[in-house]
Amino acid sequence: MQAKALLFDTFGTLTDWRSSIARQIRPRLPDEATAFRFTDEWRALYQPAMEEVRSGRRPFAPLDVLHRENLDRILPDFGLEHLGKAERADITRFWHRLDPWPDVREGLLALRDQAITVVHSNANVALAVGLIRFGRLSFDAILGAEVTGHYKPQPECYLRACALLALPPGECMMVAAHNDDLEAAQGCGLQTAFIPRPLEHGPGQTKDLKPEGDWTIVAEDTDDLARKLRERAT
Amino acid sequence: MQAKALLFDTFGTLTDWRSSIARQIRPRLPDEATAFRFTDEWRALYQPAMEEVRSGRRPFAPLDVLHRENLDRILPDFGLEHLGKAERADITRFWHRLDPWPDVREGLLALRDQAITVVHSNANVALAVGLIRFGRLSFDAILGAEVTGHYKPQPECYLRACALLALPPGECMMVAAHNDDLEAAQGCGLQTAFIPRPLEHGPGQTKDLKPEGDWTIVAEDTDDLARKLRERAT
Repeated sequence: MQAKALLFDTFGTLTDWRSSIARQIRPRLPDEATAFRFTDEWRALYQPAMEEVRSGRRPFAPLDVLHRENLDRILPDFGLEHLGKAERADITRFWHRLDPWPDVREGLLALRDQAITVVHSNANVALAVGLIRFGRLSFDAILGAEVTGHYKPQPECYLRACALLALPPGECMMVAAHNDDLEAAQGCGLQTAFIPRPLEHGPGQTKDLKPEGDWTIVAEDTDDLARKLRERAT
Repeated sequence: MQAKALLFDTFGTLTDWRSSIARQIRPRLPDEATAFRFTDEWRALYQPAMEEVRSGRRPFAPLDVLHRENLDRILPDFGLEHLGKAERADITRFWHRLDPWPDVREGLLALRDQAITVVHSNANVALAVGLIRFGRLSFDAILGAEVTGHYKPQPECYLRACALLALPPGECMMVAAHNDDLEAAQGCGLQTAFIPRPLEHGPGQTKDLKPEGDWTIVAEDTDDLARKLRERAT
């Protein structure tokens, strides 16, 4: 069965968030190692913050808001508690300026020739717009957490996205570098494509180095995914 | 004040829906005049159908659904009541294949270099995706009625779109060929750009031939809008 729409995860799958955040915070910190530690600490609070929403303990809040709250929590660990409101807002917007992996710009163009392409990320709309414009990427639409009102991997997030595209889940394919994202999508009936990004978490990465489920496609990068989808169609 | 985001109406403003629908229905009807009459009758039910939702008499239903219901109502007037479910679905999808006005493809590219560009239409997401792909257009995001849960010209539709972009209304500009759309947007604090499309309703068009409000910009077409926004920025 052909995939009529490709739903893309963004952090890690399309963009190198770790190097990009570390690079931007570097001027405020003593050295590069500290910049990476700052980045990892900030990112470590990402899942717990979304879990507050997923569990129903707090109403939906966009990722820009969660990023800002998490920033407030880590600043003292790095001697940056003196930063004011405007500076904190600027640093939060570092997440809008993430470098795409080298294959992504061209790969997405090839994929958009073959199927509807959609940002399906936990990024809120403004954040996704920032990433798209910073990376000079092109998609047909932004769906994901804020539009569906549910953070991945909640089933409602995937199912509502398919409904908005007016497609049965079986004609949609989730594309991600994360096995848990694909497992949730597969549970909702979507097709799945795994693209490993072994440097997402830096040289010491231990998870998502290889496919851990029966995914529809495993591809090296977005170009390879375009190639494999073309082969399947013929 | 610069417009950081441009919100585009689509039917009429960017696409020539009347000629496009008439062209597609033509093979099922005796002559071209009947094809235009079919198109005009179908379109005449558009506002009343949305008004059922806006008034709260029925819950939100996407425009594809309203188009289909309206189609069912007019088919007998044209001796087409024998058409089955699949054919009716196909005809409803004629609205996904509308020709952009000649200036639009290039004009939108120039505008996207200057500001965030967003589909802000009463089209549902799947319909907007269809229009974007059929017309080979590029935007940063699709917002509009289905994502906001409100049909224009309800204020919630404009205000929720600005909120999703994380921009104050004053930094957003509604672009439309319709004075009533701009009036509602202006009432919400948005900037406004009027682009007349004097042939939207065919040669006998009587409304929206000229600006009827104090709009921020009046432009001949999307190219001219790009030019005027550039002038304002310098």
